[in-house]
Amino acid sequence: MSDRIETPNACLLIIGNEILSGKTQDANLKFLGTSLAAIGIRLEEARVLRDDEDAIIASLNECRTKFTYVFTTGGIGPTHDDITAECVAKAFERTLVLDEQAAARLKRSGHELNAARLKMAHVPEGADLIDNPLSSAPGFRVENVFVLAGIPSVARAMFSSLSADLGDGTPIHTRAVDVFLKEGDVAAPLQRIALKYPDIDIGSYPFSRDGRYGANLVVRGTRPDLIDAVLGEIIAAMTELGGESSIGARS
Amino acid sequence: MSDRIETPNACLLIIGNEILSGKTQDANLKFLGTSLAAIGIRLEEARVLRDDEDAIIASLNECRTKFTYVFTTGGIGPTHDDITAECVAKAFERTLVLDEQAAARLKRSGHELNAARLKMAHVPEGADLIDNPLSSAPGFRVENVFVLAGIPSVARAMFSSLSADLGDGTPIHTRAVDVFLKEGDVAAPLQRIALKYPDIDIGSYPFSRDGRYGANLVVRGTRPDLIDAVLGEIIAAMTELGGESSIGARS
Repeated sequence: MSDRIETPNACLLIIGNEILSGKTQDANLKFLGTSLAAIGIRLEEARVLRDDEDAIIASLNECRTKFTYVFTTGGIGPTHDDITAECVAKAFERTLVLDEQAAARLKRSGHELNAARLKMAHVPEGADLIDNPLSSAPGFRVENVFVLAGIPSVARAMFSSLSADLGDGTPIHTRAVDVFLKEGDVAAPLQRIALKYPDIDIGSYPFSRDGRYGANLVVRGTRPDLIDAVLGEIIAAMTELGGESSIGARS
Repeated sequence: MSDRIETPNACLLIIGNEILSGKTQDANLKFLGTSLAAIGIRLEEARVLRDDEDAIIASLNECRTKFTYVFTTGGIGPTHDDITAECVAKAFERTLVLDEQAAARLKRSGHELNAARLKMAHVPEGADLIDNPLSSAPGFRVENVFVLAGIPSVARAMFSSLSADLGDGTPIHTRAVDVFLKEGDVAAPLQRIALKYPDIDIGSYPFSRDGRYGANLVVRGTRPDLIDAVLGEIIAAMTELGGESSIGARS
C-alpha cells in the first residue's frame, strides 16, 4: 500500500533577488510541480534564495542529499548577479571549467564572445549539458542537480528536453470533488478517512462561490484504484452530511 | 555605507501540498516581499513546505534563529491537513492551548463550535492573536514567528493588521532603468559598479520587447541618495555603450 516510499522526490531552488523583492512573480514552481508529478516525481519542497553564494551553497548541499533530485532555476546569465554555476561547482567541490561544446553553441548565436558571454559556457567539471532549444546558453546537470534557466519559457524548454530521462516513476494521479459544505463540518469524517489511508494525500481547500461556501477535496497518489476508493468514501461521507458534490476532472 | 547589516530580514514559510503539487499558484510571496520592503524588512528567503510535521518544525527552528522575523502562510484551517499551529507549538516546546478570546470570536460567527472549529482557536501557550478582519479564525504570533492564513485575501488582511507594529526599519527603495543592450554587453560595466557599491543590490533582468533585446537594471537599497548615484553611474555607462535607456518608476 505504501506508495510514498517508492516515489522519487525533488526539491526546487528558485534563485534570484527579484522573486523575493516582489519585483517578479515566480512561474516555475507551479509548472515544475505539475510536470514532475506527471512523470512520477513528487516535488516535496521549494526554496526561494537570494543571489548569495553562502545561502545557495548551503541549500544545494542540504537538499542534494535529502532529495532524489534537485532542480534550480535562475542565475545562469552573463551578469554579476548570475552565480548559480559557480555555487554548484563549489557545492560539489569541482572546478568551474569552460565547456567547449557550450562555447561553440554560444559562438553560433553570432554575438561577440566576450568574457561575460563566455561565463555562460562555464560549468562544473564533468557536468552534462542540458539543451536550451530557445536560446544558446545551455543548462547543465551534476549528479542529481539540474540547473535550469530562470526565464519560464526557457526553463520549460530545458525541462522538456530532459524529462524523458527522468520518467521511471509511476505518475502521481489527482482526483478532486467540490462539496457545498463548510470545512468545519467536513473535517471530522475527512480526518477519519485520511487516517485510514496514510499513503494517500487528502487535501481540503475552502472556497466561496456565488455566495455559497464549499471545500475542494483533493485526493493524490500513485494508485488509481486506491484513489477512486478513497474518493468514493469521501463522497459517501459528504452525502451523509447532506452536501451536494460535483466531481472535478481526472488527471 | 553598509545598510545591509542594520536592515531586519525575514523568511517566509509557505505551507501546503497544494502549492507544491501545482494545484494552486502561490500569491503570498510577491505580496509579502513587496509589503515587507515597504516597511524596511528584507525578505531573504522563502520555503514552500508540504503538510508534514517534521519538515515544518525543522524549518521553523532553523529559520527563527537565522532571520529577524519568520512569517508562515497556510495550514491554520479546521481540517486534518491544517497542522501549522501544532508545529509552531512543538517548535517552541509550548503546549497548544484553547485561547478563550479566539473561541469567543469563532462562536460569534454563528457556526456550530464543533471540535474541528475549536481547533482553530488553539494556539501555542502565550501566543498573541493576529486579527483576521475577513473571517473569524485569527492568526497568531509567538516571539518572532507570525502565523498567517493561506488564502491570499485573508493573509493580506492579517498582515495589514500587524504591519504597523513591525515598521521600525528604513524602507527599501527600488529604482530601475531599461536599456536596449544585450545582457552580455552590459555585464562588464555593471559588475564594476556592483563591486564599487557592495551594500546596494544591483540586478539585471533580460527582456525582449517588440523584437528588441534589452535588460531591466534594478537598484535596491535603503539610502535614496546612494541609489540615485548608482543609477546615474549605470546610465552613464550604458550611454557610453551606445544604449538607449528609459528610467522606470521610483518606489
